Amino acid sequence: MGEFELLARLRERLPPPGPQVHLGSGDDAAISTPSGATVTSVDALVEGVHFRRGRGSLAQVGHKSLATALSDLAAMGAEPGEAYVALGVPADLDEEGCLELLDGLTALAAETGTTLAGGDVTRAPVLTVTTTVVGHASSPDDLVRRGGAQPGDLLAVTGKLGGAAAGLLLLEEEAEGELIARQLEPQPRLEAGRALAAIGATAMIDLSDGLGGDASHLAVASGVGLRINAEALPLAGGVAAMAAATGLDPLQLAISGGEDYELLVTLPPHLLESASKAVSETGVELTGVGEVVAGEGTEIRLPDGGRMKATGFDQLR
Amino acid sequence: MGEFELLARLRERLPPPGPQVHLGSGDDAAISTPSGATVTSVDALVEGVHFRRGRGSLAQVGHKSLATALSDLAAMGAEPGEAYVALGVPADLDEEGCLELLDGLTALAAETGTTLAGGDVTRAPVLTVTTTVVGHASSPDDLVRRGGAQPGDLLAVTGKLGGAAAGLLLLEEEAEGELIARQLEPQPRLEAGRALAAIGATAMIDLSDGLGGDASHLAVASGVGLRINAEALPLAGGVAAMAAATGLDPLQLAISGGEDYELLVTLPPHLLESASKAVSETGVELTGVGEVVAGEGTEIRLPDGGRMKATGFDQLR
Repeated sequence: MGEFELLARLRERLPPPGPQVHLGSGDDAAISTPSGATVTSVDALVEGVHFRRGRGSLAQVGHKSLATALSDLAAMGAEPGEAYVALGVPADLDEEGCLELLDGLTALAAETGTTLAGGDVTRAPVLTVTTTVVGHASSPDDLVRRGGAQPGDLLAVTGKLGGAAAGLLLLEEEAEGELIARQLEPQPRLEAGRALAAIGATAMIDLSDGLGGDASHLAVASGVGLRINAEALPLAGGVAAMAAATGLDPLQLAISGGEDYELLVTLPPHLLESASKAVSETGVELTGVGEVVAGEGTEIRLPDGGRMKATGFDQLR
Repeated sequence: MGEFELLARLRERLPPPGPQVHLGSGDDAAISTPSGATVTSVDALVEGVHFRRGRGSLAQVGHKSLATALSDLAAMGAEPGEAYVALGVPADLDEEGCLELLDGLTALAAETGTTLAGGDVTRAPVLTVTTTVVGHASSPDDLVRRGGAQPGDLLAVTGKLGGAAAGLLLLEEEAEGELIARQLEPQPRLEAGRALAAIGATAMIDLSDGLGGDASHLAVASGVGLRINAEALPLAGGVAAMAAATGLDPLQLAISGGEDYELLVTLPPHLLESASKAVSETGVELTGVGEVVAGEGTEIRLPDGGRMKATGFDQLR
């Protein structure tokens, strides 16, 4: 496969760049003229570590690589802008496979208003997609970091939890359905993130590693403690049934499963009603799941009156 | 190896961010407030494809990953700003190895005024470093693209050629020396690139794939032809000897070897003298090597009076 021919074919598929992009893919570098604050994040998906080829389509791999990166922009409340994709192509992936992956990625880019402005294609032992995304906001003050939670704030979460972890279990059984889509085609909560930022969220993080671990990151960054009410956690449809079928605790899937790419947010109590309304206008629900307290530690109160300390998944993956 | 502990140890080694960076590594995304034009490029180095571990140090892998990305900024004439690094860590690379790699990368970052503002660390089957770099300029008009060469312009190159290719041959013999450094520790010509942009270069590209191929990219982008005088090409010291020892044509190393990361530039003839002076003040020489003509095709005139058509290396790598 010739590199330049492949690049040319990949470039043919790209939609035209957005207004901030002066020069897209094809030169030494892309040129843009952002105004205000710029937000940047990078995320890598590695075959055999984050996904398996054959379980889901190559278009879904492309979708997920951009979705997981955009989820970080959602968690800042930023407007998506540009994406730069480094594609590592194994010897057994042909040109058609590369184009299918790109099609999945550009479909989500078009849907979210993201310009695919550049990238790199190399050989690699396994399929690897590293995506850098750039988002925008009027000023740094409009963005929500992890470190602003205050004692007395409420803790809330967008959407439903546990679906991606349940979907992963189902994938292992070669099933199909909505939970599978939660695993293979996560939706970055970009509009909900911007709405929460505009309303005055004090801290925000996206749930990639699982609620337990990500809540701890937010708590440590803010220098506060968190109390999470396990009974309040909004479980995705089918999670309870999947948990029952596999002998797992559904709360385990919601707390430790990860990859739901929902947003965990803190905000003063008087803002909960308007935040719920604004988030539901973006098509997902906002659910209060706990509160911010002085001190430290993230504690999860279980339905049986027990308590567990939230610790996240911390193996390099 | 725990992901968050490794990230914390990596972060401890980072120098403080530059003035444009409001929030560096550690949140969902980095925040910066660029002004004017922003230039972005991404470059991946994959073990077994672009380098072999054991031939050179891990610090050199870190250096080269940032250097090859910054070279694209040099070729636009941009000021280096931020870097975002996605590190793929194989099971046999320990934490100390990751830190050594990062030290090589941050040393070049400090030297060039680049802030390492974020990244991602994942497992991977082989060591993989994907670096996104962001550069800055006052306006898009201050940047030099590939497409502006005009018939009548001169063609010139910074520094010396063939050194990296000769260094690769030497590496295979486990030798040491300056040519090895050209291969393992390329220097992005950032200051020379900015000087050439300020003086009025009409087109510019960095020599990553080899003069033959990269000249063709510039010619196609500009819609012009190029005539290169092979006798004028500035060979790096030791290239002729290395070529003689291995039975290769030294011109072959200079034209097709690649990885010299020098700049190939076009400019009106009356600017050559001031451009040469400005480039030599950055510590490298500028050498006229040919001219831009109407039409198409990149032709290399050989010392024996023969001509060769320049075609670049075009295997995916």
